[in-house]
Amino acid sequence: MSTLTRERDPILDTDFIKEMIRQMRALDSYGTYDGQPVEKLLEPLILTRERKAQIPLIGDPDEQTVASLKAFYNAIATLIEKECGLMAVPLVHLSHEGFGRALITVGKLVVSDRTLRDVHRFGFESLSKMKTEADKILAVALSVVSEHADVAGM
Amino acid sequence: MSTLTRERDPILDTDFIKEMIRQMRALDSYGTYDGQPVEKLLEPLILTRERKAQIPLIGDPDEQTVASLKAFYNAIATLIEKECGLMAVPLVHLSHEGFGRALITVGKLVVSDRTLRDVHRFGFESLSKMKTEADKILAVALSVVSEHADVAGM
Repeated sequence: MSTLTRERDPILDTDFIKEMIRQMRALDSYGTYDGQPVEKLLEPLILTRERKAQIPLIGDPDEQTVASLKAFYNAIATLIEKECGLMAVPLVHLSHEGFGRALITVGKLVVSDRTLRDVHRFGFESLSKMKTEADKILAVALSVVSEHADVAGM
Repeated sequence: MSTLTRERDPILDTDFIKEMIRQMRALDSYGTYDGQPVEKLLEPLILTRERKAQIPLIGDPDEQTVASLKAFYNAIATLIEKECGLMAVPLVHLSHEGFGRALITVGKLVVSDRTLRDVHRFGFESLSKMKTEADKILAVALSVVSEHADVAGM
């Protein structure tokens, strides 16, 4: 089956994946992916078992991986903002060894706080696994916002 | 008057300056300042008008300046922790151009959030000005913690 006639995966029309595509396209300053199927844009984030097996256990994250990681948290922050109407600010902090912390704040509220490890191996087995992970973070963040609306509004 | 007989500045015995000395000593891995008066350890943070005038308006922060900046926020976080009994986590995030954000979180509460500019010119006119600045951040942070103790305890 050729790419043109292949049925479009419905996951591509979900809010999160649409936002991820927007984020990844923004990173593509040279238009390398123009005219290509959108799945291509998301490929850097997909780390199948085979691809993962090829990455050494210890290493420094490259620029593309760091950019993808930031795109992931930016996309989540954008969705939080859309859902609750308050500005959500992502902050990804990495040390040189690929360790770090990814925070999202809304007002004075930390709505998501994750320790990052092995950032050079950042990625998801499939689009669906990526979406599930993002949905989880989003759900927790929104429940924290609704529980502490006063702090989130500060 | 020689250094030995000079009266010790009482500011050196305040909690904040004592903590700053501890932070700066931790950075001095080679013991360069061992046996020297403690004021020496704090010198990188003191930017008199004359020293400031010598620094170009635009520039990248050097390692020592970034380390001093982190020491400053680490010291404040340590004092917050001492005062309120909850863990305070500092997070200094810099872009390459010397812009950034300094956050301190307690639980899920952002107790301090500062935009950083011109980090390559980071410093204070005097020890007393540095302490005043730190005291201000500390006071605001502690009042935020007491207002939202539930979120700080999360």
